Amino acid sequence: MMKNYRLSLFLFSLLMWGCSQPQQQESATTEELEQATPQDQGPITLVIHGGAGTILRKNMTPERDAEYREKLTEALNTGYAVLEKGGTSLDAVIAAIQVMEASPLFNAGKGAVFTNEGKNELDASIMDGNTGKAGAVAGVTTVKSPIQAARSVMDSSPHVMMAGTGAEKFAKEQGLEMVDPDYFHTDRRFEQLQKIRESEDKRTGYLFEWPDRKFGTVGAVALDKDGNIAAGTSTGGMTNKRYGRIGDAPIIGAGTYADNATCGVSATGHGEFFIRNVVAYDIAALMKYTGITLNDAAEEVINKKLVEIGGGGGIVSLDRQGNVAMKFNTEGMYRGFINESGKPNTFIYKDE
Amino acid sequence: MMKNYRLSLFLFSLLMWGCSQPQQQESATTEELEQATPQDQGPITLVIHGGAGTILRKNMTPERDAEYREKLTEALNTGYAVLEKGGTSLDAVIAAIQVMEASPLFNAGKGAVFTNEGKNELDASIMDGNTGKAGAVAGVTTVKSPIQAARSVMDSSPHVMMAGTGAEKFAKEQGLEMVDPDYFHTDRRFEQLQKIRESEDKRTGYLFEWPDRKFGTVGAVALDKDGNIAAGTSTGGMTNKRYGRIGDAPIIGAGTYADNATCGVSATGHGEFFIRNVVAYDIAALMKYTGITLNDAAEEVINKKLVEIGGGGGIVSLDRQGNVAMKFNTEGMYRGFINESGKPNTFIYKDE
Repeated sequence: MMKNYRLSLFLFSLLMWGCSQPQQQESATTEELEQATPQDQGPITLVIHGGAGTILRKNMTPERDAEYREKLTEALNTGYAVLEKGGTSLDAVIAAIQVMEASPLFNAGKGAVFTNEGKNELDASIMDGNTGKAGAVAGVTTVKSPIQAARSVMDSSPHVMMAGTGAEKFAKEQGLEMVDPDYFHTDRRFEQLQKIRESEDKRTGYLFEWPDRKFGTVGAVALDKDGNIAAGTSTGGMTNKRYGRIGDAPIIGAGTYADNATCGVSATGHGEFFIRNVVAYDIAALMKYTGITLNDAAEEVINKKLVEIGGGGGIVSLDRQGNVAMKFNTEGMYRGFINESGKPNTFIYKDE
Repeated sequence: MMKNYRLSLFLFSLLMWGCSQPQQQESATTEELEQATPQDQGPITLVIHGGAGTILRKNMTPERDAEYREKLTEALNTGYAVLEKGGTSLDAVIAAIQVMEASPLFNAGKGAVFTNEGKNELDASIMDGNTGKAGAVAGVTTVKSPIQAARSVMDSSPHVMMAGTGAEKFAKEQGLEMVDPDYFHTDRRFEQLQKIRESEDKRTGYLFEWPDRKFGTVGAVALDKDGNIAAGTSTGGMTNKRYGRIGDAPIIGAGTYADNATCGVSATGHGEFFIRNVVAYDIAALMKYTGITLNDAAEEVINKKLVEIGGGGGIVSLDRQGNVAMKFNTEGMYRGFINESGKPNTFIYKDE
C-alpha cells in the first residue's frame, strides 16, 4: 500500500515537473466553471443499501428473496416520492431509512441484532452535503427511529454526536417517538445471538468469523432538485457486541459522509476496518484531491484498500451529477437505486 | 471552497492532458523508491499539545505561565526518554499524555471539565501508524488514564471504539487502574462550570461563546527509531456538555490519525467542526493525494478550511522525516516538541 502511494506521489511530481507553462494558460476562468455547474447537476436520485455480507443465491428461498426486494422497493419509492414532490435530500434519506428501520428484515431499528447482554443498542448518523452539518447517536435503546434522532442532533443542537442515556434524554425532549426496549426484540435476531454465542471463541470471549456473517446496517444517499446531497446510515451494530462497542455507522467520515462538491456515501461492513480507513470520507477525498470519478474512488477504497486489510463490506454513493456507485467486496449486498425513470432497481447478489 | 476544488480539478485535468508520454518514462522503479526510504527517516521526535483557545499573554501570570511550561517540559522529557531507550512511538505517546492526564492543569484525566450534570466524562483515542490499528473510549467516568484504556481497546480487543459503562467494564477486566469519579473533581473546573452556567443562553440551554473559551484537550505524536508514527488524544470534553455529547477526541480521523506513509496528527478544538471536517485524516489525505508537505497540508486544514467555517482549534503533527507542524487558529496553544538535540521546546502564545 505504502509503495503504491509513494510511487503515485513520485509519478505525480514528475508530471508536474514535466508540464510547461503554456498549457496552464488554457485553464478556465471561475466564471466559466460556475456556468458549467447547472448543466452538470444530475436528476433527482436515491440509492440505498440494506447491508452486505455472505448473501448467496443458494442459501436464499424465493420467498425470502422476494421479501427483501419488496422492502427495498418500498424504501426506494418512499424516498423518491419525497424528492419528486420537491423535498430535500435529507428528508428523502430519512424516509427511505425509516422504511428499513421499521422492518425486521434489516439490522437497524426493529430488526436490530442483540448485544452479548441480550440488549439492542442502536447507532445512526446523517450528514448534509450542502451545509456540512452532521448528527449522530450511539448506543440508544429506546428511540424508535435512530436516524430521526441523528437528524434532531444535527438540526436542534450545536453537537454532532450524542451517546447512551444522554442521547435518549435529548431525543425525548425533542418529542421523538420513544419505545420500550422490548420493541426491538425479534425472535430471529435472538436466535442469531444464541447461535453466535455457541460458536464463540471461548478463549477470547469474542466471536469467530462465522461463515454466514452479515453486516445488516441500512443506509441511503439522495440528490435533490437543488443539487444537494445527503447521506444517512442506521444500524443495530454487531451481533454479540460487548463493552459498549461503537462501529462505523455513527462515525462521520467512516460510515457516513456527504459533500455537494464531491459525493455522498453510506457504508455497511466490518465497522472497525471502516473506522481505521475513514472509508466514507476517503472516497470523497480521492475525488476531491486526485480528480478521479466516484466510481473509481469507490472501487479503489472498497475493492483495493479494504480488501488488502481484510475489511469486508460495501458502500452506496452518488455524486452531484447523479452518478451512482454501489460497491462491495462481500458475496452480496442488499441494494437499489431510483432516478428520473421513476423505476426502482433492486439487487442482492454479486452477479446481478 | 467548492470553486477552488473545481478549479484545481480542472487545472489538474489540463496538466494531465498536456503531459506527453516521454516524461512518464522517467518514473522510478519500486526498488529505487524502497532504497530511498531509510535515508528519509527522521530522528526520534515527540510533539505534544495541552489544548488551544483564547490564551493571551496579558491574562497570564508569570507563575501560571511557568507552571504550564514546566508540565509540558515534563511530558516531553518523559515521552522522549521512552524513545531514547529504543521504545515504541505508542509507548512514548502514552507516557507523555499520562503526565498531562495526571495534572490538574489540562482538560484531560485529573483536570477534566464538568458536564452539565456536574460529572466528568472522559474520551481518548490512539492510533498506530505502522499497523493502522486504533483504539478509543468515550464517556468513561472511572478510568484513571483514558489514553491507556484506548490503548487496551486497540491491543486487547477486536474493536476500535467502546463507550460508557461497557468501556469501563472492559478497562476493569484488563486490570487498568480504576478510580472513584470524585478523583476527577477539581475546584477550579467546578467553578468554571458554575461560571459558564451563569453565562448560559437560557433560551437554548446551550452555552454562549464566552470570551475566554479554551479547548484543553491534550495529545501527543511520536516517531520512534523504527520509523513508526503513533498519535493519541485525551480529553474531558466541553465544559457544561449535555446529553452524552461526544467530541472529536475519540473519533479516529477527526481528533486522532496516524499512518507511517504520511503523518500522525492529534487535534484540540471545537470538536463538532473537527468531526465534520474529518480534520486529522484530511491532513494525511492532502499529503497522500496531492503530494504537498505536512506543513502545507496542516496550514490548509487549520488556517483555511476550519477558519472558513468558524472552527476554532489546532493540531500537532509530525511526518516520517521528523518534520513537525504545530498549527492553530486560536490566540494560543499549549505545545512543544523535542527531537535529536534532546532539548524540550515549549510554546504557549501565538507570537512565539
